[in-house]
Amino acid sequence: MFDTPEDPTEIAESERELAVRGELAASTRTLVDAVIRSTVADDELIAVCEEIDRLVARLQVSQMEGSFGINRSGSGTVRAQGNAVIGLRNAIAPPLTITQEPEGRAWADFHLGAAYEGPPGLVHGGVSALILDQLAGEAAAAGGSPGMTGTLTLRYRRGTPLGDLRGECWIEKVDGVKTTVKGHLQDAEGVTVEAEGIFILPRWARAGNETPTRFE
Amino acid sequence: MFDTPEDPTEIAESERELAVRGELAASTRTLVDAVIRSTVADDELIAVCEEIDRLVARLQVSQMEGSFGINRSGSGTVRAQGNAVIGLRNAIAPPLTITQEPEGRAWADFHLGAAYEGPPGLVHGGVSALILDQLAGEAAAAGGSPGMTGTLTLRYRRGTPLGDLRGECWIEKVDGVKTTVKGHLQDAEGVTVEAEGIFILPRWARAGNETPTRFE
Repeated sequence: MFDTPEDPTEIAESERELAVRGELAASTRTLVDAVIRSTVADDELIAVCEEIDRLVARLQVSQMEGSFGINRSGSGTVRAQGNAVIGLRNAIAPPLTITQEPEGRAWADFHLGAAYEGPPGLVHGGVSALILDQLAGEAAAAGGSPGMTGTLTLRYRRGTPLGDLRGECWIEKVDGVKTTVKGHLQDAEGVTVEAEGIFILPRWARAGNETPTRFE
Repeated sequence: MFDTPEDPTEIAESERELAVRGELAASTRTLVDAVIRSTVADDELIAVCEEIDRLVARLQVSQMEGSFGINRSGSGTVRAQGNAVIGLRNAIAPPLTITQEPEGRAWADFHLGAAYEGPPGLVHGGVSALILDQLAGEAAAAGGSPGMTGTLTLRYRRGTPLGDLRGECWIEKVDGVKTTVKGHLQDAEGVTVEAEGIFILPRWARAGNETPTRFE
């Protein structure tokens, strides 16, 4: 997801900034996990909580309005660093590193820990939906048929255990502005959840001037 | 969601523990938001990151294996403090405070900030699915027809803006072990996403001994 601007200095700065941001979010992600699982005494939790509030104040000295949105690198690559599934800055995102293949396929290997739980020991059914929505959209975009999610259907075959997982989606059919994508999540034993999504190219994007893309 | 054990001392401790846990997760949630939106200099971000790592180490001095799962209070109330949508301890959860109504309805008012973004300024389509899955399951349980999600279908009518939202689900039909639930998310302008879920009472729960419940 790194861009390749022509000025080498810009590359260096850009990569350093991304690395710093990525590390900060990664540490925060580990904190989210530790907050759920810690069994230390209440007084220590209160002390840690006060420290977190101090760190928040330091970060909020200067901040953007609203959400991250997207930014564009020098080369025009679109980056959605705030995205809830793939966002480099977002501690809620696992985050997924998605590989897109030009025939219209997208996949990712990832690990889901305690923060993604629904039923005991299992991935929340809605978290599976969250990840499959992102993968399906990226599959559509990878195959040159991007769009906004129109419908998404999940079929839960069995519980998805927390741990190491793979998700994969592919274009099943393209019919004008409508792209049908299928996919699934799987653990080492096989498929746990199947998905089918219909992606529609928005009216505003059909003129041809603007090439919408799935945000990276 | 507080239990009502008979020993008053136990009440006090339990409520204090929940309050401490809730505060810690709430502060972490604010940190997640600040990490996305902060525009302070890289060196300060690096310093904050190091502090976060130190706090993680303090929390990890003692922790449970794996995920939170569920625990039962003295009164038998099931609590899923780690749940990705409603978990008191989970900074990924908005968290939703869901009201269940006995006729088979569940609803919640909530706020989604920068961490739940998909397209710029909009809620990630998969986050809408995540929340609707939880609400649909709780509606089924509220009406006495609990189950695991079998299928879930989302229909996206328009983008859901980040901000103040309401979600609502209700039982549409009960057919033996199969419960059909419908619902939607809405902003001030009306419905943005519709959902339909089929919930199936698991085979292991049909004997009657075990009353499965949606985890609170």
